[in-house]
Amino acid sequence: MERPKINFASENFAGVQGELLKALIAANEGVCPSYGNDAITRSAVEQFRQSFGEDIEVYFAFNGTGANNFGLSAVLQRHQSIFCTDVAHLYVDESTATETVTGCRLYAVPSVNGKMDAAGLRRSIKRRGDVHHPQPGAVTLSQPTEYGTVYTPAELRAIKAVCREQQLLLHVDGARLFNAAIHLNTSLKDLCRDAGIDVLTVGGTKTGMLFGEAVVFFHPPAGNAYVYHLKRSMQLASKNRFIAAQFECLLRDGLWRGIARHTNELAQYFARQIARIDGIGGVASVGSVGGGSGVDGVGGTGGLSITQPVQTNAVFVRMPAELYRRLQGIAYFYWWNEERSEARFMFSFDNTKEEVDRFVRDALAG
Amino acid sequence: MERPKINFASENFAGVQGELLKALIAANEGVCPSYGNDAITRSAVEQFRQSFGEDIEVYFAFNGTGANNFGLSAVLQRHQSIFCTDVAHLYVDESTATETVTGCRLYAVPSVNGKMDAAGLRRSIKRRGDVHHPQPGAVTLSQPTEYGTVYTPAELRAIKAVCREQQLLLHVDGARLFNAAIHLNTSLKDLCRDAGIDVLTVGGTKTGMLFGEAVVFFHPPAGNAYVYHLKRSMQLASKNRFIAAQFECLLRDGLWRGIARHTNELAQYFARQIARIDGIGGVASVGSVGGGSGVDGVGGTGGLSITQPVQTNAVFVRMPAELYRRLQGIAYFYWWNEERSEARFMFSFDNTKEEVDRFVRDALAG
Amino acid sequence: MERPKINFASENFAGVQGELLKALIAANEGVCPSYGNDAITRSAVEQFRQSFGEDIEVYFAFNGTGANNFGLSAVLQRHQSIFCTDVAHLYVDESTATETVTGCRLYAVPSVNGKMDAAGLRRSIKRRGDVHHPQPGAVTLSQPTEYGTVYTPAELRAIKAVCREQQLLLHVDGARLFNAAIHLNTSLKDLCRDAGIDVLTVGGTKTGMLFGEAVVFFHPPAGNAYVYHLKRSMQLASKNRFIAAQFECLLRDGLWRGIARHTNELAQYFARQIARIDGIGGVASVGSVGGGSGVDGVGGTGGLSITQPVQTNAVFVRMPAELYRRLQGIAYFYWWNEERSEARFMFSFDNTKEEVDRFVRDALAG
Amino acid sequence: MERPKINFASENFAGVQGELLKALIAANEGVCPSYGNDAITRSAVEQFRQSFGEDIEVYFAFNGTGANNFGLSAVLQRHQSIFCTDVAHLYVDESTATETVTGCRLYAVPSVNGKMDAAGLRRSIKRRGDVHHPQPGAVTLSQPTEYGTVYTPAELRAIKAVCREQQLLLHVDGARLFNAAIHLNTSLKDLCRDAGIDVLTVGGTKTGMLFGEAVVFFHPPAGNAYVYHLKRSMQLASKNRFIAAQFECLLRDGLWRGIARHTNELAQYFARQIARIDGIGGVASVGSVGGGSGVDGVGGTGGLSITQPVQTNAVFVRMPAELYRRLQGIAYFYWWNEERSEARFMFSFDNTKEEVDRFVRDALAG
Repeated sequence: MERPKINFASENFAGVQGELLKALIAANEGVCPSYGNDAITRSAVEQFRQSFGEDIEVYFAFNGTGANNFGLSAVLQRHQSIFCTDVAHLYVDESTATETVTGCRLYAVPSVNGKMDAAGLRRSIKRRGDVHHPQPGAVTLSQPTEYGTVYTPAELRAIKAVCREQQLLLHVDGARLFNAAIHLNTSLKDLCRDAGIDVLTVGGTKTGMLFGEAVVFFHPPAGNAYVYHLKRSMQLASKNRFIAAQFECLLRDGLWRGIARHTNELAQYFARQIARIDGIGGVASVGSVGGGSGVDGVGGTGGLSITQPVQTNAVFVRMPAELYRRLQGIAYFYWWNEERSEARFMFSFDNTKEEVDRFVRDALAG
Repeated sequence: MERPKINFASENFAGVQGELLKALIAANEGVCPSYGNDAITRSAVEQFRQSFGEDIEVYFAFNGTGANNFGLSAVLQRHQSIFCTDVAHLYVDESTATETVTGCRLYAVPSVNGKMDAAGLRRSIKRRGDVHHPQPGAVTLSQPTEYGTVYTPAELRAIKAVCREQQLLLHVDGARLFNAAIHLNTSLKDLCRDAGIDVLTVGGTKTGMLFGEAVVFFHPPAGNAYVYHLKRSMQLASKNRFIAAQFECLLRDGLWRGIARHTNELAQYFARQIARIDGIGGVASVGSVGGGSGVDGVGGTGGLSITQPVQTNAVFVRMPAELYRRLQGIAYFYWWNEERSEARFMFSFDNTKEEVDRFVRDALAG
Repeated sequence: MERPKINFASENFAGVQGELLKALIAANEGVCPSYGNDAITRSAVEQFRQSFGEDIEVYFAFNGTGANNFGLSAVLQRHQSIFCTDVAHLYVDESTATETVTGCRLYAVPSVNGKMDAAGLRRSIKRRGDVHHPQPGAVTLSQPTEYGTVYTPAELRAIKAVCREQQLLLHVDGARLFNAAIHLNTSLKDLCRDAGIDVLTVGGTKTGMLFGEAVVFFHPPAGNAYVYHLKRSMQLASKNRFIAAQFECLLRDGLWRGIARHTNELAQYFARQIARIDGIGGVASVGSVGGGSGVDGVGGTGGLSITQPVQTNAVFVRMPAELYRRLQGIAYFYWWNEERSEARFMFSFDNTKEEVDRFVRDALAG
Repeated sequence: MERPKINFASENFAGVQGELLKALIAANEGVCPSYGNDAITRSAVEQFRQSFGEDIEVYFAFNGTGANNFGLSAVLQRHQSIFCTDVAHLYVDESTATETVTGCRLYAVPSVNGKMDAAGLRRSIKRRGDVHHPQPGAVTLSQPTEYGTVYTPAELRAIKAVCREQQLLLHVDGARLFNAAIHLNTSLKDLCRDAGIDVLTVGGTKTGMLFGEAVVFFHPPAGNAYVYHLKRSMQLASKNRFIAAQFECLLRDGLWRGIARHTNELAQYFARQIARIDGIGGVASVGSVGGGSGVDGVGGTGGLSITQPVQTNAVFVRMPAELYRRLQGIAYFYWWNEERSEARFMFSFDNTKEEVDRFVRDALAG
């Protein structure tokens, strides 16, 4: 009997986490008003208030592309620009949704390990008050980044200082926000509110929900039109209780902590196993980058090397293309960057140490 | 103990139908590729092919606004216009999503009982080839309409003839398509393919799904860019298998027939009970409109009157505003048209004859 | 020798009026900063201030479509709707520029003789605060209308009252504003500022300029972003002094009065000649509509009839299609409304009574 | 008596060239149909055919931003991307018009001296067929570039080869196209048609016209909708004959050659004078970049240095900020790049050697 392929490709390959599925099924009891005018949605919003602070507005969206672009469109005007890294999901993985929904220009800031820095951001901002140039409106960064790395509080403070100086809103794509909070060992409130985030996408789908994201506005002016932009962005769910019920479950009693801790730890475990491998099935060594000694740094020994600091639930590994192809028979994972021979391993709520062990064993068996 | 309020407001107030929930839970087994590259999605597409004909392309969307506007944006250019009725969901209930996603002009065609007719459509189409005028691109109609009425095959043929003559694409918003098919006692293929529909939204949410709509393209040219427009429209679900599994369940073995027949019959039953009422709780009669003798026609006796032909799962009732307000204590239902004192009753998969009886009893008890 | 065809088609068929051409040539002296940062532009803005009131902002645009849509996009958000008549230039003659630039929904209000009335507008405005519906944002009307008719001060006050009650901005397309001012024998300030207009397009091209329109904002909030929207709308002229110089000339010493009076009077003269005709070249009478006794009212005798009140520089005449075709050999004029057999005659700065006489003579000569 | 400031800032600071003004005045004779349906427009299109080849379509636009974005929107779909240099006018000087009108993503390719190269372009193009990523649609380059440099035929061939390989359209912003043709000593046909350009903006305003640009489509498919996009882009001029007349004059008898040769030569002359300066008014030398020996290369001696190859009518000069400020009293010119202490001098049809001499003299007099 053939064993099923392991999923190290994406949290989107996983299904629904057990507790969340139960919450979803429980929410199916009886009838209630649509479009978020229901008790479950109110309860979920209350959970968001407890987690992120009282003075917020919360809206729910179907997916990350919808959440990010709704959030930005709600606070920007069409003559403005948005600064993001050159590897931001918004910039390379959301088609032209930003142009469609916000009408704003995206300008890319150079990144290292998925992160922009305050100085690079500062240099990118130009020509405030010049009618010919898109006017700087917002910075968006991903926490953690698309490379699984996490902005430190100090880095965020420096970026926020640029935002204040340059009158930019700070938007954060938190598709995997919970993993960053676990890495930094911080509360969501400290991570977000106190860092001066203005608009935040909180990812549900990648944390194990069937579907659903949330958009948190931290400084909502009275009379804002956010909800109209939600509808215009085609993200207002008719049976919203089912998104809300999952979020309520995720935030209540800290279910998110368990899930994020598990996936972060699996990434560490995987990275340690990879770091131990000294030559895989006769594959020639591709050398080490960075040469970090621990898995929290960048490093590697023998035939493979880890290319990005392992801080959340992702591990990026340089490997020969032929090894990548062979291992596809065992597990799903992405060939992330052709030029760097870099593969991505992403860990989901339902991954196990046994899967990691099996993968490593099969890889060595080559 | 207080009895829960009855839902006659909207199918969106109901939860997930039992079989569909089971299918959704079953789909949670194991891992599979995201974004529709999975076996469940392939199986659902196969079901669509069997139901609607082989030569189609099927895409899935989160909600009706997303499905309608994605479908239209995929086949139209931005200098074109879309003709719809003045009561179309697209025209009055989808915010400015059409402008956002399609960039096209909407022109309203007058309607009677929610339907446009071929002559009215023909008169609305103007100035083909005139650079100053938005160029006629598509007609969209709702089958059944927002008033629960159904275009007959002859009416559709006449509208399609105008489309052919005027080089217009025919788009249909089938948010409740299954109810129309039951009313007409026809197959989905006859109802859609043979009627010459080019782009079709098939509603899942209102039929009892947790979420999810489908967009069927009947004449997809080679090399089309539909899937890119789906992504740009922010409607591409990462865990698409959960939309697909529900649709697969709905179409396989004709589950949709049972649901739609049930809700259509409840509407008939409700209309008959309403027609029997001769004065409710001392409320003065507001007279009858249309004077149809059966509930399939427009009519009414005594204190209330039915204002639209009852052909699917909706019943529109003229009633005094004070009665509307009192009955809100018993059941959810909408005050649809203030000028006409018209309330809407919509029947969902989980409504029962007992609910109708209870509602009528309580209404009479005044 | 063949005589050149007479232009009764459009002011756009005419060239540049003599004084305006001189101003344009005079502006060609020397160099000056581009994009409106020049002394001529400042002087033109000053003229606008003297004509329309001190507390305004003025921007210049290339054409009417640009001016209207820039003006609306600068003050509206993308979830809002714009109410206009069903014959508004914006609605039927500016392609999908409104969707492109403003992102807003257009809703048509029924019109009589090109005018909406306050009651019709009031009835069209619906569902304030309903997230599903485009939110009422602005009314736009044309003064004079596309039928050459003029809103009276009382009519404007009634419409403005609806705007106040419904929190709508009042936008006016004044492509032929000067003709309305002459008809009402009023100052521009009375006509516009005191009527509560918020955003106004002032037509230059149709008054005899080579090109150029102006957009006046009457209540500009501090820190507005209008100029960025002008650039984004691609309407910011690099050599703006040439638009400004013409407007400066038009407003200074009341040149506009002379031009508008001339074209209004020609329309009256033409209408009187037409009214006198009792059967043209054997053409059967097509009857009279409206039956007004004077040419300021609607009326006509004999073979032709005047279909709209003649209040500015347009005359609409019902005539047989065959007569229309024959007269095309003599003069350019438009077949405006096929269903009503209605032709449009529009009078430009360079039209003369001799042209009218010649046209009537030739028409009678049949 | 104060001498007027010299304009080395922009061709947009200059007025209308004498021959072109005459053509414009001559076009004011009589009446003619609007919106380009006139004999003058036909004649201008014929001139374009003679200059650029028979199988083209030509449209006229008001300004460069309008021309570029109309041209791109007419041939692209909204899920596509446009590759341009990081200093392209489209990218940094046209606000968010591209997002507004095309809906496409802009991706910046690194540039040297204003030029991208084929290899850099090739590296930038990614993920064809990946639904999540904006799909490569077109390359746009400026010929000459914003730094006055000119793509050689070999460079263009290499870029076009990438376009063919990657199925990209080639768009060229030719705001100063004539200057490039003079530099390369080539015909417009060789420069454009034979280089495989698909869509071309031909600048009129910067060459001395009052206003007006042209957009040339080299491979127009039958039944294209270009003209509707022109209208939608708000670039269709009502009195189009006045744009056409100037272009007709510019192309007929090679007026463009004389103007472009004059401005190119002035740039050379200016660069030679600058290169000769050995210390200006005690200003410390800022060193030389590039060290080219001639003014066609990059170089400089003494206190100032020329930072870009001087190939058309622009000269970029590194100079101390205090010198820049002092010289603003004498002439208009732009501080182009703060980081590089780089000023831009641009030469217009009405500049003279005497102005250059006077400027250099006054600069030295410091």
